[in-house]
Amino acid sequence: MANAMHTKTELSELGEFGLIRHLTQNIVLKNESTLTGVGDDCAVLDFKNKKIVVTTDLLTEGVHFNLMYVPLKHLGYKAVTVNLSDVYAMNATPRQITVSIAVSAKMSVEAITELYSGIYLACERYGVDLIGGDTTSSLTGLLISVTAIGEADEEDLVYRNGAKDTDLLCVTGDLGGAYMGLQLLERENEVFKVNPKMAPQFAGYDYILERQLKPEARKDIPPLFKELGIKPTSMIDISDGLSSEILHLCTQSEVGCRLYEDRLLYDNQTKKMATELNINPLVAALNGGEDYELLFTLPVTDNEKIRNHPDISVIGYITDKSEGVNLITAGVGQAIPLQAQGWNPLKD
Amino acid sequence: MANAMHTKTELSELGEFGLIRHLTQNIVLKNESTLTGVGDDCAVLDFKNKKIVVTTDLLTEGVHFNLMYVPLKHLGYKAVTVNLSDVYAMNATPRQITVSIAVSAKMSVEAITELYSGIYLACERYGVDLIGGDTTSSLTGLLISVTAIGEADEEDLVYRNGAKDTDLLCVTGDLGGAYMGLQLLERENEVFKVNPKMAPQFAGYDYILERQLKPEARKDIPPLFKELGIKPTSMIDISDGLSSEILHLCTQSEVGCRLYEDRLLYDNQTKKMATELNINPLVAALNGGEDYELLFTLPVTDNEKIRNHPDISVIGYITDKSEGVNLITAGVGQAIPLQAQGWNPLKD
Repeated sequence: MANAMHTKTELSELGEFGLIRHLTQNIVLKNESTLTGVGDDCAVLDFKNKKIVVTTDLLTEGVHFNLMYVPLKHLGYKAVTVNLSDVYAMNATPRQITVSIAVSAKMSVEAITELYSGIYLACERYGVDLIGGDTTSSLTGLLISVTAIGEADEEDLVYRNGAKDTDLLCVTGDLGGAYMGLQLLERENEVFKVNPKMAPQFAGYDYILERQLKPEARKDIPPLFKELGIKPTSMIDISDGLSSEILHLCTQSEVGCRLYEDRLLYDNQTKKMATELNINPLVAALNGGEDYELLFTLPVTDNEKIRNHPDISVIGYITDKSEGVNLITAGVGQAIPLQAQGWNPLKD
Repeated sequence: MANAMHTKTELSELGEFGLIRHLTQNIVLKNESTLTGVGDDCAVLDFKNKKIVVTTDLLTEGVHFNLMYVPLKHLGYKAVTVNLSDVYAMNATPRQITVSIAVSAKMSVEAITELYSGIYLACERYGVDLIGGDTTSSLTGLLISVTAIGEADEEDLVYRNGAKDTDLLCVTGDLGGAYMGLQLLERENEVFKVNPKMAPQFAGYDYILERQLKPEARKDIPPLFKELGIKPTSMIDISDGLSSEILHLCTQSEVGCRLYEDRLLYDNQTKKMATELNINPLVAALNGGEDYELLFTLPVTDNEKIRNHPDISVIGYITDKSEGVNLITAGVGQAIPLQAQGWNPLKD
């Protein structure tokens, strides 16, 4: 399961500037707003009359990823897409990223090149330019810091604080898959540690593995909103789990919410893996995180415009703040206060 | 010499969101271009018709800093100023920063608060807004990733590639101080390790210690250029050492250069420490790095405008590329090709 790297060039053979040249020499800038990219003290951008959005994420080895089972190319891809997801969550279009990495001196040039191949693949697929970064060493594991910059017309921007009483609570795609993919990877990694000759049992789980290892950001959603003639009153991406994100929206909008258990969508692989591991898929959706779907609210009058749309589920509605933030269970319809139990890197 | 932290609150008591709230609750935005800062998926900025510059740096414990002798507040301050230095090197004005940190779970809330007090002090002094970031854990040391965003009118921007044959090569301030400060800190740290009761011998070296521990970015230089009615043809900040930076300017501008040893300025403390440690201050200037002064080129016709200015030294001039990049030694005037021997984090 480990990343097989057959050739190995020592980092010290290239040095910092040699490595930067090696990693950035083939960049072709795609966006009009990128005036100059890598190679000066700063990159230079021009967004004319657009508003600019900025977001940043830091991924550390052993905390956010395990190189025992995460291929470096996928890791590079994911480090980019999780940031772009935040840009789409503003209803904006990503244009540029900076990527800084700290690597152990033991890491080979080929391994770093593999990581960057994933970064460039994401740049290609999402139409963003890599415009800068920093490359240094760390005494221990790998660390990746990505900052994404995007643009939007002011009237299109969607914040977290605009949800109103009676708004529909909506989500794109299905939930819990990334978490179940992680459980599968961890199970097989444990098996591997005990018996390295045992082949991992991944058949039939390609979707949830991809959700975990190589998640996509919902690039399609902002244009879909335009096409459907709707604009969310609030929006956030699901990185820490549905509970945590709903609580963010409700806190910042000063509203309450009713979330219906029976409205949550799961992929069949998510359900199958959940059964196999004896985990309730609801827990994966609420607290698992990393689904990178978009959670948003819409005026109830927009209901017709999204009804039966395959990419959007209505999973609840916004209430007055005094009613609290509740999960309404399937069947008996009991109201249970939602609690943020999403992934907390400082509590682990 | 270690950082004394008398109260200790466990990070786990606050959790990630609690920590973010604790660290960001007192932010007051200062810049018109910052529409919204911390608290949504992205920050939102508006630069109207200005060009935007972006730069990023990653500092890792044990590679860029040693917490045995670097106070956390200074570290936070320096993590910001080294990025702002890159913005000034574009002849631009910094406006916003994002700060991401990865901390060991053993680090206390008080220690992180101390780090941020330095970050906020730099924000205050340089007029920049902290608009976002990420807070996570690392399995080992502390890591700080800062991205700085600035603005400039297009006609004011200065790149690395505009130096022309016969241009004057100029530098602000004095050189080698940060490196000599580091040597002093390392010497005293070795003494401390052998005998913790021995008081460190820092008297009379406040300037070089500050150059190393709490460097300032040359905020005063872009307005000085306006005042003097000059615009550099190329510019870079000195982070890796004069040799490395001159080579960057010359390579990107496709020119050669003559740098005169006897034109380099050293502070008296730098010279004194150099004598004490038997190091040539020239080596500290060329290869030491971290001086965060600005290196730039000017048309020779601007000579009168900067002559005898206390903040600017002319240290050489630009030649045709075919003449190479040379140090002209004091006394005999021998030409020695410059080599980049600046700090290389991947070779250490």
